[in-house]
Amino acid sequence: MAPTSAEIRLPEWLAQRPLPQAPASDEACMALAIGLARENVARSGGGPFGAVIRSEADGGIVALGVNLVPASGNPVLHAEVVAISLAGEALAAPGGATLFTSCEPCIMCLGAAHWAGVSRIVCAALREDAEAIGFNEGAGCVELRAEMVGRGILYERGLMRAEAGDVLSAFARSGAAIYGPGR
Amino acid sequence: MAPTSAEIRLPEWLAQRPLPQAPASDEACMALAIGLARENVARSGGGPFGAVIRSEADGGIVALGVNLVPASGNPVLHAEVVAISLAGEALAAPGGATLFTSCEPCIMCLGAAHWAGVSRIVCAALREDAEAIGFNEGAGCVELRAEMVGRGILYERGLMRAEAGDVLSAFARSGAAIYGPGR
Repeated sequence: MAPTSAEIRLPEWLAQRPLPQAPASDEACMALAIGLARENVARSGGGPFGAVIRSEADGGIVALGVNLVPASGNPVLHAEVVAISLAGEALAAPGGATLFTSCEPCIMCLGAAHWAGVSRIVCAALREDAEAIGFNEGAGCVELRAEMVGRGILYERGLMRAEAGDVLSAFARSGAAIYGPGR
Repeated sequence: MAPTSAEIRLPEWLAQRPLPQAPASDEACMALAIGLARENVARSGGGPFGAVIRSEADGGIVALGVNLVPASGNPVLHAEVVAISLAGEALAAPGGATLFTSCEPCIMCLGAAHWAGVSRIVCAALREDAEAIGFNEGAGCVELRAEMVGRGILYERGLMRAEAGDVLSAFARSGAAIYGPGR
C-alpha cells in the first residue's frame, strides 16, 4: 500500500511567532524571513532558509515558510514551497502577492512561484552566496527568471544581503550537512 | 494569523486502487500513471496528469500522484510533486527510484526530481503535447535536464506517448480550464 497523505506543518516555535502589523514594509518582511532562516537552524535543525508572502491588497502577511526538508523527509519542502503551499488561494487574490525569501530561489522554488502567480519576488542572499557554502541551486534559473520578468513579474535581489549572508556563513561554520541532489 | 499547516491527500478513488505486483514493469507503471491521469479528470476534476514512483531495489511502487491543484488550491501540487512528497524517505533507499509521469515534467517538477534524487525519469506525452493544448511548462527545462543527465540521471520520453496524448486531447475537447501561471 502506497502512502495516501502527507502533511506540511510549520514548527511550533514558528506557528506561535507574532507577525508584523499590516501594511508590513519590505524591510520588515525581509527581516522576518531572515530571522526565520536563522531560527530554523537553531530550533528545528532545518536548512538556513526562510520565506514570507505578503498580500499586496492590504500589505498583510499571508504565509510563512522555513526549510522543512530534514524534519519531514520531504525533499520538496523548501521555505518557498512551504510558504506558497500554506498561502494557497490567497495567492490568487487581486492586487498580487510578494514572495520575500532569505536567499534566491532554487529552480524548483522559482518554478513554484511561476505557477503560483506571485507578482514580485524579493531575495536577500544571492544564488552565489548559497553556492559558496555548497548548496546546488539547479540549472535553468536564468532562463525561467527571464521568462517570468517578461510576463511582468518583478524580481529583485540583494535586499539585506549581508544579514542573510551571515545566516548562511553561520550555518556553514556549524558543520551541519549540506543536503543536495540525491541527499 | 497565517496558516500553519496544509495537507497533501490523494482522492479516495485513487487511495483505494490496487497496485501492480512487484516487480512492476515499465509498461505497467506507465499504464498506471496514464490511467490515473485519465481518471483524475473524470473523478476529481483535476488536471490530466498522473505519476508513479517505483523503487529500483525491489520493483515495488512506493508512491502515486495526480494533479491536485484545482481540488486543493495549492499551485505546487502537480502529479510529480505529489508523488515525490508521498514517497518521502523511500526516495533515498539504495538502488534508486524511477519516476514515471504521464507527461514530461514542468520546470518545477523537474526541479523537485532534481532535489529528490530520483535516478531515472520516464515520460509518456512530450512537453510539446502539453503545450499544444495550452499548458505552459516554464523555461529552463532544457538546461536543468542537461545538468541532471550530466549527473547520471536517465531521462526517457515517449513511452506510450499515444495513450497519454489521448488523455490530453480528451481534456482539451472537454473544454475544461487550462490553468497556467497566475491561474
